[in-house]
Amino acid sequence: MADIDAPAGGRIAGRGRGGRQGRQAQRSSAAATPHIIPGIKRAIPTYDLMGEEGLVKIEAAIDTLLQEIGLEFRGDPASLKLWDAAGADVAGDLVRFPKGLVRDIILRSTPRSFVHHARNPARSVVVGGNDVVFSPAYGSPFVHDIDQGRRYGSLEDFRNFVKLAYASPWMHHSGGTVCEPVDIPVNKRHLDMIYSHIRYSDKPFMGSVTAEERAEESIDMARLAFGADFVDRNCVIMGNINVNSPLVYDAAMSKALRAYARANQCTVVVPFILGGAMGPVTTAGAIAQSMAEAMVGVALCQLERPGSPAILGNFLSSTALRSGSPTFGTPEPALGSLVIGQLTRRLGVPLRCSGAFTTSKIPDGQAMMESAVSMQAAVLCGAHFILHAAGWLEGGLAMGYEKFILDADFCSALHTYLAGIPLDDNAMALDAFREVGSGKHFFGCAHTMRNYETAFWDSATADNNSFEQWRDAGSKDAMRRANEKWRAMLRDYEAPPLDPGIDEALQAFMARKKESRPDMWY
Amino acid sequence: MADIDAPAGGRIAGRGRGGRQGRQAQRSSAAATPHIIPGIKRAIPTYDLMGEEGLVKIEAAIDTLLQEIGLEFRGDPASLKLWDAAGADVAGDLVRFPKGLVRDIILRSTPRSFVHHARNPARSVVVGGNDVVFSPAYGSPFVHDIDQGRRYGSLEDFRNFVKLAYASPWMHHSGGTVCEPVDIPVNKRHLDMIYSHIRYSDKPFMGSVTAEERAEESIDMARLAFGADFVDRNCVIMGNINVNSPLVYDAAMSKALRAYARANQCTVVVPFILGGAMGPVTTAGAIAQSMAEAMVGVALCQLERPGSPAILGNFLSSTALRSGSPTFGTPEPALGSLVIGQLTRRLGVPLRCSGAFTTSKIPDGQAMMESAVSMQAAVLCGAHFILHAAGWLEGGLAMGYEKFILDADFCSALHTYLAGIPLDDNAMALDAFREVGSGKHFFGCAHTMRNYETAFWDSATADNNSFEQWRDAGSKDAMRRANEKWRAMLRDYEAPPLDPGIDEALQAFMARKKESRPDMWY
Repeated sequence: MADIDAPAGGRIAGRGRGGRQGRQAQRSSAAATPHIIPGIKRAIPTYDLMGEEGLVKIEAAIDTLLQEIGLEFRGDPASLKLWDAAGADVAGDLVRFPKGLVRDIILRSTPRSFVHHARNPARSVVVGGNDVVFSPAYGSPFVHDIDQGRRYGSLEDFRNFVKLAYASPWMHHSGGTVCEPVDIPVNKRHLDMIYSHIRYSDKPFMGSVTAEERAEESIDMARLAFGADFVDRNCVIMGNINVNSPLVYDAAMSKALRAYARANQCTVVVPFILGGAMGPVTTAGAIAQSMAEAMVGVALCQLERPGSPAILGNFLSSTALRSGSPTFGTPEPALGSLVIGQLTRRLGVPLRCSGAFTTSKIPDGQAMMESAVSMQAAVLCGAHFILHAAGWLEGGLAMGYEKFILDADFCSALHTYLAGIPLDDNAMALDAFREVGSGKHFFGCAHTMRNYETAFWDSATADNNSFEQWRDAGSKDAMRRANEKWRAMLRDYEAPPLDPGIDEALQAFMARKKESRPDMWY
Repeated sequence: MADIDAPAGGRIAGRGRGGRQGRQAQRSSAAATPHIIPGIKRAIPTYDLMGEEGLVKIEAAIDTLLQEIGLEFRGDPASLKLWDAAGADVAGDLVRFPKGLVRDIILRSTPRSFVHHARNPARSVVVGGNDVVFSPAYGSPFVHDIDQGRRYGSLEDFRNFVKLAYASPWMHHSGGTVCEPVDIPVNKRHLDMIYSHIRYSDKPFMGSVTAEERAEESIDMARLAFGADFVDRNCVIMGNINVNSPLVYDAAMSKALRAYARANQCTVVVPFILGGAMGPVTTAGAIAQSMAEAMVGVALCQLERPGSPAILGNFLSSTALRSGSPTFGTPEPALGSLVIGQLTRRLGVPLRCSGAFTTSKIPDGQAMMESAVSMQAAVLCGAHFILHAAGWLEGGLAMGYEKFILDADFCSALHTYLAGIPLDDNAMALDAFREVGSGKHFFGCAHTMRNYETAFWDSATADNNSFEQWRDAGSKDAMRRANEKWRAMLRDYEAPPLDPGIDEALQAFMARKKESRPDMWY
């Protein structure tokens, strides 16, 4: 094993120091502006499923894949050139990596943690260390609510989800393509999406990756909002790069990856491995593949610009045996996430993992059971950035309004879970036992009165009333209650302030870019 | 800390040895009959939330509660006499325990694991070590299905749930009061319940605890089924004893507890602590209380009959801040379970924990989200016997037909989760990568063909089809699919064979007991 605890030259101070100290170090060394950094601070350990021997075995398999099988970079000579210069064996599009090369490149300069800045500094988040960031689901062409059913997403839906994520205290992040605004031409959508994130929210957000030009224009818009100098020194936008598994980066992805890295912005590198299709059906093999693919992407960021922030992602999925359909929220990917967490910590790179996954078409019992398994795996495995934390339906094909609300409530519960169990004298409650003794209730005792209001997690969607109360209030199921909640949130939504100069500059940029090219619908 | 790894004189060999070895040791040393022992063998570690310092702090609080506050035994002089003889300080009904006394009594003779025999030896289960046993929900006066809604449970419902648990491969146990058969007099119900477990299932089951006489008659019926000698040497029935929290055992419970222990049958000792009512609102204090109460019960079993099998249980709950209603499936009890698991392992006693808890009135998104959190806590904390694993609705007030099916499917997923990640050469799949290389799919490769059929967990209730397929099949939600499933299971149910002599003897016993006393309805 490489010495993973040695400082690896990341750009942000505080690398390797978790907890309050680490955060303070980061805060004091980051950009000049003082930031209140929100989000969750993990106070519970990770769940380490696999022993040392198993981890070493999988690391050996990763090395074999990198050395022997290799990865292709299709249609991107610049990436091949970087690999060649770094000492990899390049033959046509195929790159093979001498043992240890990829790991060494990662360890040399990838930040262990970094601040992802929001335009409202109070909403900037730390990615890495003991911080956990929840972000909405990403990329679905359809949207769903229980009144209108399922239909294609529009820019209005996109804005609605930006507003809902802004209004939810349990989302730390505005996300990226919260749904595809299918009513806007494919080659212009990114402009409206970035504008919406900036205009309707002040939380951190993600940019486009579907073409190098769109990635660059996303970053350009961030420069208008944050200032070009600030952007060169700080992460203000993320690009979510999908590996074309198995073992291929296509040109759109590797070029977009390098665009973000070149601008010193964060790249999230995510293989999508559907067992039996883009990878093997066995979990250990899929883990090795996922790590190999993601590590190569993180290393490429470092070759493009050493010290640029990157997140190692994974997205394991299983398959329904009878139909061959992808499945989500099943036990195999949950187990896989735990091991990927362990392996990623040995690299010292922030981790993106899992989400509120389901194949259900509606936010029913199946949806929430699968999502709970998947989200709990994310929290247990030590993920730092949890994309798809709210809204996901139908294997990612639909973004659900009610699902978003139920998932956000689960994220709220996970805040309490991540806080762990306090052990101070008040928590031990011996004074309560001394006051109450045996056989009497604790309703009115001093300890209860002192702690009652903050004692327990308070669900925004669960119905804990009696059967009779619930029946008399209309026998509403969780979907119906969630429906009322998102409608109220949109009704009560108020946009955060935005500097009119920035707003104007963004609108002018959009107009110019839209005029400069014909509409493309594919 | 006491030396918990030293053999504590349990009656079953193999104490302290988990895994295949432990099971083989138990099997060879248990009763003369060879048993095929089914159930899940845990191949993943427990999730140990708390460090040594925290555990010691909570153990000190447990000692303080036992020494300083004490527990009451109301109306049961025999229990007080046992405690007096064991060296406790008895003053009226109040018993205080010198430091270490309770722990020492537990460690001296409580079996680390034991076989809970079923009348079909192939269905006997191991309780303890690396084995995990799922058992249906227990004790609800109401039943629920989506066609008829919620109503009082009947003996027909009781039999239906026994049949469903028998038919489900994911339930290892028939449970106890799977619902209250409210149409049968209170003082005669236990006879019909025990008879139903024996007649309609051949899985292990639980007996009555609501009065000493009913406990003894439950055990008498087990003697008719298994033979009196066998019962004296082996566990064939369990009694679930609820502590009257805080810190009280009422006479019905302590007498029933001693009845099971006296007969060498298993006692499950379970405090029910609703934070703010029967215990403090802080989790650390509730954990200490729960452990103190349960430890005293386990120790009392050992005083009544050293070596009698016992399970330490817990049942933590939180409270809705606005209404004061109990809540379930929330993060605080999930965290509490993890620590109770750690503390119980230090005592070397089998653990009962959690279940598919929810306050929802129907098996909707709320129900399955809460149940998934609660069940996952049970599995992560190392519980050996998981009561309430299927069917629970409405804070335990209702047993749900569809909920049972969805929960059983989740138990099925947990079988795969508990099996962990294989790491043999087949699992590493390097041959698959060598065959497929980069950029091609794995559909037809030899590794996929070899592993496909057993590769992934196969849900019995999830709909993984496309939106169009799902819509064309009637847009059924998870509840509706579960409804079809339990109806089919009852339709296809076939009773296991039962020796006609045993059947006659049981029926004669029931008839005699029913004639011997007038109906009581409270």
